[in-house]
Amino acid sequence: MSTELRIIPVSGIGEVPPGADLGHIIYEALQRQHLRVEHGDVFIVTQKIVSKAEGRVVDLEEIEASEFAKAFALEYEKDPQHVEVVLRESKRIVRMDHGVLISETRHGFICANAGVDESNVNGRRELALLPVDPDRSAQELRARLRQLESEEAKDVAVIISDTWGRPWRNAQVNMAIGVAGMDAIIDYRGQLDPYGYELKASAIAVADELAAAGELVMGKIDQVPVALIRGYTYAPAPGDGRVLIRDSATDMFR
Amino acid sequence: MSTELRIIPVSGIGEVPPGADLGHIIYEALQRQHLRVEHGDVFIVTQKIVSKAEGRVVDLEEIEASEFAKAFALEYEKDPQHVEVVLRESKRIVRMDHGVLISETRHGFICANAGVDESNVNGRRELALLPVDPDRSAQELRARLRQLESEEAKDVAVIISDTWGRPWRNAQVNMAIGVAGMDAIIDYRGQLDPYGYELKASAIAVADELAAAGELVMGKIDQVPVALIRGYTYAPAPGDGRVLIRDSATDMFR
Repeated sequence: MSTELRIIPVSGIGEVPPGADLGHIIYEALQRQHLRVEHGDVFIVTQKIVSKAEGRVVDLEEIEASEFAKAFALEYEKDPQHVEVVLRESKRIVRMDHGVLISETRHGFICANAGVDESNVNGRRELALLPVDPDRSAQELRARLRQLESEEAKDVAVIISDTWGRPWRNAQVNMAIGVAGMDAIIDYRGQLDPYGYELKASAIAVADELAAAGELVMGKIDQVPVALIRGYTYAPAPGDGRVLIRDSATDMFR
Repeated sequence: MSTELRIIPVSGIGEVPPGADLGHIIYEALQRQHLRVEHGDVFIVTQKIVSKAEGRVVDLEEIEASEFAKAFALEYEKDPQHVEVVLRESKRIVRMDHGVLISETRHGFICANAGVDESNVNGRRELALLPVDPDRSAQELRARLRQLESEEAKDVAVIISDTWGRPWRNAQVNMAIGVAGMDAIIDYRGQLDPYGYELKASAIAVADELAAAGELVMGKIDQVPVALIRGYTYAPAPGDGRVLIRDSATDMFR
């Protein structure tokens, strides 16, 4: 039986410097809201603060753009150094059209600009890259949150999210790029509906849905980089965000 | 400032017959849970019960399959009559490969099997088609819920959802196919971040995120076809799910 679910914004986190103890920062923010880490909690954490804590940032001024990057940037009024970083983060270009660069990252994600995000830090233009291994980032964050809280907080899940566009649909939604503590997909295949027939619609990407749900309390202006989802029932598992990446053999839109 | 959000499963709705007053059915289910329709509520309603109430169902036995449908069905061990209905609901085939049929519906949605869903009703095999006009369905349901509740429930939103696969990502998530009472997309373009710089990541498909969030309390076995989202702040607007459909001129994956 389903129960009610709560999505709680975790605010007051501010700018995260390289090398920061992100688990501790989130834990302190929770305490200021009089919250503890509880059994079954799911934390949605935006990629940007994870990347910053992990030092996955690039100073735009230090990048030398290739001829290829310069040519593309010139044609579409982009920044050559920004384009260069996107190319360096890409394993393969999927589409390069309308001034949009959609590529496959080394992780296997397919997204615009290889997930590279520009931001302004104290007036300096800075690019945040995706974490090297978002699953490992999620695992480490999960371990740290459990360590800071008592032993009762045994089953906690962490999802690292990013905001991406989609083919066929306008605007962006949050997706899960790293998952720890729960299965990213629930597979209903083989289960029976109330009439005793096997269910056809088969597998739900719950980690993506949790990431999307988290975004609803984050907004873009409010600076809420973490959402706590409470009341969602999941089977504890090591977790793995890579299972969300479609195998090239069954992907018709590569 | 973001506030906490609640996602409440609305259960006990059961099988919805053609011609049913779906607004009244949902209203009664809410009452059994001691809930009222409140100002600001967002209802996520699965396409299947909307289609059934609107009589958008087809008895498989009454369909005569074309040669094209038969050939595709034979090659991939599908039901020719099922394939025939999918073709009739399609305006254009986008991909037809690996036994998967991805098409553009008359509404402009691009999804597998033109959104046609097979279910078993008292042992009869039945196909549920998408509503003819999901935005109109959402508007009518919204009007009915407001009419049943007091006048105070002025700003209520209704989102009709369906569960779809995505390119590049495994498993399915809920999407919004009809929207009434709120904007489906929040556009942040032109707004400034805390440092005074214009935000780049620009527009969020909040209706899709709300639909995805609703799915988390629905499950597939539990028979929860409606979720009530409470605490989400939106600007009241007529609403329109078609704004979520990417224009063919900017779509690189048609």
